[in-house]
Amino acid sequence: ALPFILHKLNVPIYGTPLTLGLVANKMAEASTGYRPRYNEVHAGDKIQSGCFSVSFVTVCHSIPQSLGLAIQTPLGMVVHTGDFKMDMTPIDGQQTDFAAFAELGSRGVLLLMSDSTNVEKDGFVPSERTVGQTFDQIFRQYKDRRIVIATFASNLHRAQQVFNTAARFNRKVVLQGRSMLANIELARKLQIVNAPDDLFLLSKEAEGLSPSRLVVLTTGSQGEPFSGLVMMSKGEHKQIRLSSKDLVVVSATPIPGNEKLVSHTVNRLFACGCEVIYERNRQIHVSGHACREELKLMLSLVKPRFFVPAHGEYRHLIRHAQLAREQGVDDKNVFVLQNGEMLAFAPNGKSARVEGKVASGAVLIDGIALGEFEGRLLKERHQLSEDGMICVSVVIDEDLQLLAPIEIQSRGSIFSDDDEHFLEEAEGAVLKALVEFRKGRDKNPQTLPTEIRKRMRETLSRISRNYPTLVPLVTVVPRT
Amino acid sequence: ALPFILHKLNVPIYGTPLTLGLVANKMAEASTGYRPRYNEVHAGDKIQSGCFSVSFVTVCHSIPQSLGLAIQTPLGMVVHTGDFKMDMTPIDGQQTDFAAFAELGSRGVLLLMSDSTNVEKDGFVPSERTVGQTFDQIFRQYKDRRIVIATFASNLHRAQQVFNTAARFNRKVVLQGRSMLANIELARKLQIVNAPDDLFLLSKEAEGLSPSRLVVLTTGSQGEPFSGLVMMSKGEHKQIRLSSKDLVVVSATPIPGNEKLVSHTVNRLFACGCEVIYERNRQIHVSGHACREELKLMLSLVKPRFFVPAHGEYRHLIRHAQLAREQGVDDKNVFVLQNGEMLAFAPNGKSARVEGKVASGAVLIDGIALGEFEGRLLKERHQLSEDGMICVSVVIDEDLQLLAPIEIQSRGSIFSDDDEHFLEEAEGAVLKALVEFRKGRDKNPQTLPTEIRKRMRETLSRISRNYPTLVPLVTVVPRT
Repeated sequence: ALPFILHKLNVPIYGTPLTLGLVANKMAEASTGYRPRYNEVHAGDKIQSGCFSVSFVTVCHSIPQSLGLAIQTPLGMVVHTGDFKMDMTPIDGQQTDFAAFAELGSRGVLLLMSDSTNVEKDGFVPSERTVGQTFDQIFRQYKDRRIVIATFASNLHRAQQVFNTAARFNRKVVLQGRSMLANIELARKLQIVNAPDDLFLLSKEAEGLSPSRLVVLTTGSQGEPFSGLVMMSKGEHKQIRLSSKDLVVVSATPIPGNEKLVSHTVNRLFACGCEVIYERNRQIHVSGHACREELKLMLSLVKPRFFVPAHGEYRHLIRHAQLAREQGVDDKNVFVLQNGEMLAFAPNGKSARVEGKVASGAVLIDGIALGEFEGRLLKERHQLSEDGMICVSVVIDEDLQLLAPIEIQSRGSIFSDDDEHFLEEAEGAVLKALVEFRKGRDKNPQTLPTEIRKRMRETLSRISRNYPTLVPLVTVVPRT
Repeated sequence: ALPFILHKLNVPIYGTPLTLGLVANKMAEASTGYRPRYNEVHAGDKIQSGCFSVSFVTVCHSIPQSLGLAIQTPLGMVVHTGDFKMDMTPIDGQQTDFAAFAELGSRGVLLLMSDSTNVEKDGFVPSERTVGQTFDQIFRQYKDRRIVIATFASNLHRAQQVFNTAARFNRKVVLQGRSMLANIELARKLQIVNAPDDLFLLSKEAEGLSPSRLVVLTTGSQGEPFSGLVMMSKGEHKQIRLSSKDLVVVSATPIPGNEKLVSHTVNRLFACGCEVIYERNRQIHVSGHACREELKLMLSLVKPRFFVPAHGEYRHLIRHAQLAREQGVDDKNVFVLQNGEMLAFAPNGKSARVEGKVASGAVLIDGIALGEFEGRLLKERHQLSEDGMICVSVVIDEDLQLLAPIEIQSRGSIFSDDDEHFLEEAEGAVLKALVEFRKGRDKNPQTLPTEIRKRMRETLSRISRNYPTLVPLVTVVPRT
């Protein structure tokens, strides 16, 4: 969203080198001309902003250099975990900073806001390292095939492990997908991902190489249209044609809502003849979000007086709130907030309540327009997509006499605009509307479209049970 | 689909009493006037159809009275399992008929076609009875709340267990959802579901009763729009208002593709204040389809010479084919077929190959129209839903002079048809098209819409990056 709102907000941005690099890439891509004020921060840094002072605490997540926030306010300490998990053996050695959270806890925390995404899942997230072990096994098992691995372009730990395994098995890596290329380049520049230059080949360079010497790391693990893996699965990828000589590993699980896209992609991959490893029980992916035991540990370390579950669907927030109560947070100090709701604390910090709302919600973007009329627009588009539409152009003189045959055009309708029977029926409806209209008292031609719509609706209801959007255009040709 | 195709096929229908009852309900609902030729069959029956003789074999599934087929052909026996699983302790006592399948196997089976849906899942499906035990625990734990249970209207075993638990805990049952009411009525009439009349109440009768005396069994477990549970979750259900006095149990898992609908419904249920049990690990649902060990057992019993995986997505068919090979079916005798593909056997039954196709695929229905133009129609609807549309009516005389201001109407577009600036731009585009057109050699007004579309496209591309469907209607008013 940043390219669309940053120039409106015009605020400084604080972030780790990786975060700022990713933002800079996005801004450059959108070429808005706005120059953000970047401020690099690292774990342990503290910045002042009005009456708040904000410290940054290392958390482990699927993307390196993630930070939680410890915000010192006049009323007390507010801790926001951000997205986190508690991998004890992370790829980059950067564990969630247990000591820092524990120290905050022992000094006293007013409010904890914590990632709720995986509250439905018991136990701990397995270490990212387990995926590396699976990669090793897979490379050993499929040593004669080209191996294509799809994952999130932001999951640089995963990429690092692909590079490590590839090097160990003497394979070269071809990167596919715009964001994958951009992110790996950035991460290598920042030395977040370590891999020698000669590990990588361009697809062109790879052409002569035996499949057993290659790994393709690509985007498309969510079945995103036009992503690397999806283009390959459709046989539409410019460089890579899949066949029975390929193994594809989908190193991700579908984000809720993407299940169908992923499932279609996997079906198409099988139809290409390749073997595909995608099943949840194959240890080819771990989540970036803490499970129940990790969430409990965070609550135990921070021991907050108030708790607000963050990041997750409403049902996750509810479950996380229940968990916080079980972990000893006072029942009346746990708040499940809707987006935009404000939580106000009493001056003594002993109680809080939901008080008012700030503007929030999705802003839809179409072309270069930032939508502020989404309600009407989406409703109309939905209707168009369900039943299509029929336009009728009616040209009359000032005496309401037709000057030419009516013109009809349909789009997405079960009625073709060259269906004689339908045209006849529609014409009948328009003529009926004109007759009715002439009989009525209201002779304002601006109400004629309503009358036409009504008559056409009746006709359509009779000859089908179909209700397309009807768009009558009435032109009154003035007397010359 | 039957109400739409049965009169075209005009073939007899064979089925168990429950199946025929369900079909009859569907046919009555659609009131097509066609009278199907129903033939009741039971497990063990054999019917003759041309050179085939078909025997019916009991299989266990989420719906009672399910049957597999053993089709004796001149070339040998073909076994089709239908949807099945191998619950050893089914609610109605009707296990999959292991002995019958084993006997078929020992007599020799040419071809097995077997349900592939759950081939990705290890082990055995837990018994339906485990869900009953969970119901008991839940009823015990939430004894002061009204309990709302949502499941598939076809899962009559599940309904039976709800009735059993309700009776044990001295609760009355209110049924919600049209298909739930119809199916339970049918199943009770056929004595497939057993429950005394006085177990049931109409929602009106239930009004005075304490929540702790009530169970609501409803449709909507897949988040289907307008289903019982969804209407309740939106606060739009006529009889049932949910609150913190309710427990909702979603006794189903989302069918692939329905995840979002289910997730939204659960979020809304939490927002109503109720407690919701929906998690996969809560033992509130078991699948109706065999898992890997059951599929292996079926292969081991039937020992087919040829194998064709049936019922499942393409990836399931591939996995099931692999499983059959592992179970000893000859590699070249395993065929993964696309819908419509025909498998032809050599006259000696020793080999087979895919040979030709029969018409198959989805037929879309809109209103009472059976679609045969889906390609164009869906493409147009998709386009309308992505970018909306703009209609322009242009009225000219035979000298191509505008006789009246152009009329513009937009639907689902980011351009409002009362946006002065946009109207001006659009008018400019139309005038430009007229000028160009007059200059050109081709004076046929029928090509004018193309010119207008082109000019408007240019204009829209300049003032936005938005590409709505453009519908120009040109009326030429003849000289009088």
